[in-house]
Amino acid sequence: MNSIFDQDLPPTSANYAPMTPLLFLERSAEVYPQHPAIIHGALTRTWAETYERCRRLASALKARGIGRNDTVAVMLPNTPPMVEAHFFVPMAGAVLNALNTRLDAATIAFMLDHGEAKVLIVDPEFAALIEEAVSLRKSREDLLVIDAEDSSFSGTSKRVGELTYEELAAEGDPSHVWELPGNEWDAIALNYTSGTTGNPKGVVYHHRGAAVNAISNVLEWDMPKHAVYLWTLPMFHCNGWCFPWTVAARAGVNVCLRRVEARAITEAIKQHGVTHYCGAPIVHGMLVNAPDELKQGLPAGVKGMVAGAAPPASLIEGMEKLGFDLTHVYGLTEVYGPATACAKHEDWDGVDIGERARLNARQGVRYHLQRSAQVLDPETMKPIPWDGETMGEIMFRGNITMKGYLKNPAATQEAFTGGWFHTGDLAVQYPDGYIKIKDRSKDVIISGGENISSIEVEDVIYRHPDVLAAAVVAKPDKKWGETPCAFVEIKDGARSTPWDIVEHCRKHLAAFKVPRTVIFGELPKTSTGKIQKFELRTRAGSVAAITASESES
Amino acid sequence: MNSIFDQDLPPTSANYAPMTPLLFLERSAEVYPQHPAIIHGALTRTWAETYERCRRLASALKARGIGRNDTVAVMLPNTPPMVEAHFFVPMAGAVLNALNTRLDAATIAFMLDHGEAKVLIVDPEFAALIEEAVSLRKSREDLLVIDAEDSSFSGTSKRVGELTYEELAAEGDPSHVWELPGNEWDAIALNYTSGTTGNPKGVVYHHRGAAVNAISNVLEWDMPKHAVYLWTLPMFHCNGWCFPWTVAARAGVNVCLRRVEARAITEAIKQHGVTHYCGAPIVHGMLVNAPDELKQGLPAGVKGMVAGAAPPASLIEGMEKLGFDLTHVYGLTEVYGPATACAKHEDWDGVDIGERARLNARQGVRYHLQRSAQVLDPETMKPIPWDGETMGEIMFRGNITMKGYLKNPAATQEAFTGGWFHTGDLAVQYPDGYIKIKDRSKDVIISGGENISSIEVEDVIYRHPDVLAAAVVAKPDKKWGETPCAFVEIKDGARSTPWDIVEHCRKHLAAFKVPRTVIFGELPKTSTGKIQKFELRTRAGSVAAITASESES
Repeated sequence: MNSIFDQDLPPTSANYAPMTPLLFLERSAEVYPQHPAIIHGALTRTWAETYERCRRLASALKARGIGRNDTVAVMLPNTPPMVEAHFFVPMAGAVLNALNTRLDAATIAFMLDHGEAKVLIVDPEFAALIEEAVSLRKSREDLLVIDAEDSSFSGTSKRVGELTYEELAAEGDPSHVWELPGNEWDAIALNYTSGTTGNPKGVVYHHRGAAVNAISNVLEWDMPKHAVYLWTLPMFHCNGWCFPWTVAARAGVNVCLRRVEARAITEAIKQHGVTHYCGAPIVHGMLVNAPDELKQGLPAGVKGMVAGAAPPASLIEGMEKLGFDLTHVYGLTEVYGPATACAKHEDWDGVDIGERARLNARQGVRYHLQRSAQVLDPETMKPIPWDGETMGEIMFRGNITMKGYLKNPAATQEAFTGGWFHTGDLAVQYPDGYIKIKDRSKDVIISGGENISSIEVEDVIYRHPDVLAAAVVAKPDKKWGETPCAFVEIKDGARSTPWDIVEHCRKHLAAFKVPRTVIFGELPKTSTGKIQKFELRTRAGSVAAITASESES
Repeated sequence: MNSIFDQDLPPTSANYAPMTPLLFLERSAEVYPQHPAIIHGALTRTWAETYERCRRLASALKARGIGRNDTVAVMLPNTPPMVEAHFFVPMAGAVLNALNTRLDAATIAFMLDHGEAKVLIVDPEFAALIEEAVSLRKSREDLLVIDAEDSSFSGTSKRVGELTYEELAAEGDPSHVWELPGNEWDAIALNYTSGTTGNPKGVVYHHRGAAVNAISNVLEWDMPKHAVYLWTLPMFHCNGWCFPWTVAARAGVNVCLRRVEARAITEAIKQHGVTHYCGAPIVHGMLVNAPDELKQGLPAGVKGMVAGAAPPASLIEGMEKLGFDLTHVYGLTEVYGPATACAKHEDWDGVDIGERARLNARQGVRYHLQRSAQVLDPETMKPIPWDGETMGEIMFRGNITMKGYLKNPAATQEAFTGGWFHTGDLAVQYPDGYIKIKDRSKDVIISGGENISSIEVEDVIYRHPDVLAAAVVAKPDKKWGETPCAFVEIKDGARSTPWDIVEHCRKHLAAFKVPRTVIFGELPKTSTGKIQKFELRTRAGSVAAITASESES
């Protein structure tokens, strides 16, 4: 069938361009050249300056032989080079591999080998660690190490690279004519999953997905032009959920932040008129629980996105008292960070805080430009009934889904079985279509043949007024197979005992779901504030003898 | 070169979906089912209802054999069926051809033949006209004519179709599972250019471009969720510049409007809390010049987009007095409507109204997601210097450019020569990169070997306080080749004479640019408020003897 609408109407360079976030930088530099793009301490750079520096840096990389599909790894906090790397690396055709700065040398060495990095840009804070990681590499290929100076780093360090970042910039041509990617499907970034078991997997992002997710962030937040974005979320985490590109699309301001601390955050918000920021619940909690002295003078209407865990009622309430507006989003590295949002409805404003927290704690609905987010039965691949009861697996499909796992076709195919990305998160859908996670597949506790949702138990524990953080994992049990084991962090000065927690759970949970073991203490967290359940599982196995009642006796 | 980033990482249905605005409707119906989507007089339909109706209508079309690449023409004012057609037609895989309701029967017959329409949906207001157009068709293929009832039509009419629109809807399946387009490059709409000479050309839009332009509208306007959009701009004009899809992307409200009149506009704004609307200068002028009684109670902060001509200072000033915010955009049918915007800068607020009008009268910079808008030398295809003086031709490239002209490969290739879409508009670029049209290629007046920009002369005439509208065209002249001839519409009750206009021009223009002929009277305009210069050129040729001074003598 050769329809009239298919004849002589091919894509040409007049009517087709690859979708890429690099054009966001070009346009902002063209339209708003004098508008600030990056603020870092005393430093302010405009969009014109940022674009010029990125052209310099891209051309310097190219002059050193770095080009299409070459990996450029970076080990950087949220400083200006980290923002710039999101542009100049792909402007050279290369792929940005932002390494998690909390990792150990062996894991970094694995990633450098696996990702076949040709360049590594290092902040002075991590110089010693990187020196060790480089020495642990198995690859014999050349690796160009570059020291990224930063005036905000006050510690002692040493040079580990062949040259500095500013020396690299000086090598470049500020009027360099860079090229769009040949194909919007070309890789733009490589992000390693935290990998709770086995080796980390390398998640590949492409230009199309990066552009589409960056715009979806704008749509979700109604983010206006010139928004002022504070970098509380690490850019090594899903490329800061694609916000370096979002901020460029809005000709906004990147307010850099070397360290996530209550004082630095509140001061930045007041000084620079921050309008938007993201983070795990712990980041928002830092604000809510900050001393009044720091909170004084915070502007109203600042918008926060929270991901990594559902925000508990106390956090939502605390943010409301601050006059901040919190949006709950959910995603994974494989879907460019958030790929669902708990989109709010006007009539939620009228309900009490408990109900509002329950509504907002849901993972919600597909992100704006994602094709679909649904809970499917992983056996039949059919949607589960929207009854708030029937469990299935959250699956995604559409343009906000990774290109696949690097050098791991088996894992890619498994993840994409049946034409959907399988998250491994178990959930229900409510009659309004909103998704609510019940558990990670591997976090379900099976006790006496009954499934226990660790999240359900955690939700109950969180409602206890003395609880700061809680995590529930399976503890092996000879009689029941597994039993729920709760790790709880209580607030400073609180006097509750583990037994009080058990009592509290008994009031709100079926007997078989009540933790048999409750352990107080600080919880191990990842660099992004996620509680490390795999670590707790190990601990749970080794505390077989201590139960809540026993620790009280 | 088989890079690791190109191995085993193909697009699949898990990680790739065609970009299409149809998903905007699906998502809004899923997330905000109870939110109003369409308001028309006493009728309000939610997004869930609208989606259900569109599924019905799409399935009814398919059941009648209409499918991929079949043309569905519509002759409709801005009523609910016109909004729905933007979704259910492409949901059936078909192509929407929205006909200009101001056209004559012969031109419509040409379009029905050329576009090979299989279905034609008609509003009762145009029944008689369509009956004539159908009888003038040369094609012998079947054409299914459908009468779209509308309670807001108060005139007399007759049935011309085989069935009614609601009968078609009743045939359909409300739970119909529609399919995404097989390819985002598939046609979604066919829009005929007004065609000042020769036959109209059929401009083909695709799903990708429609989605990308719809989102660009959001970005340009910082358009929030649930925006309330008033349909002052005809949807037959570049698909209402893609706003049916934009409103769906925002889960906003389409406030329909059968007739563009000051009272209907002001009442709709007050009654429904309209936040956004678009139109030619004449539409905004209607508001500014409306009686105070109608203007009373208008909310502040309403945003208008103006296209078709640069807004004169008096209009900008009038809008500011109303508390409305005007954005000047520029485009053509071939670039999905607006493809540049005169993006405002904060420091423009501080300058006087004359300077602000001058700044805002510029066509500005590329639309957000358009790859490029530039003034090039059409001979060398090189950028002209940004000096505000050197003229070149405005050219576009990127995803907001048509698929091409239907059944006209020669015209398509000519329009896309050198990998850019050639607009035919002559312009300069200022040092800030902003584009300013100096003339249409064919509107330049060449007098005694000197080029005269008709727009420059019009701008001066517009500054005269008695002038409502003005157009300057070339008048053949034995001595000079051509001379400028001005057609002027003056305000009710104004007492200026053509000679006063000449006097005014003498003060502000070089002598050779002053119109030799000035003719008062109503200007011929297109359905979208554009002045029809081709008509004036004919008139100018036939009034050889009358000059301004002579008409005064």
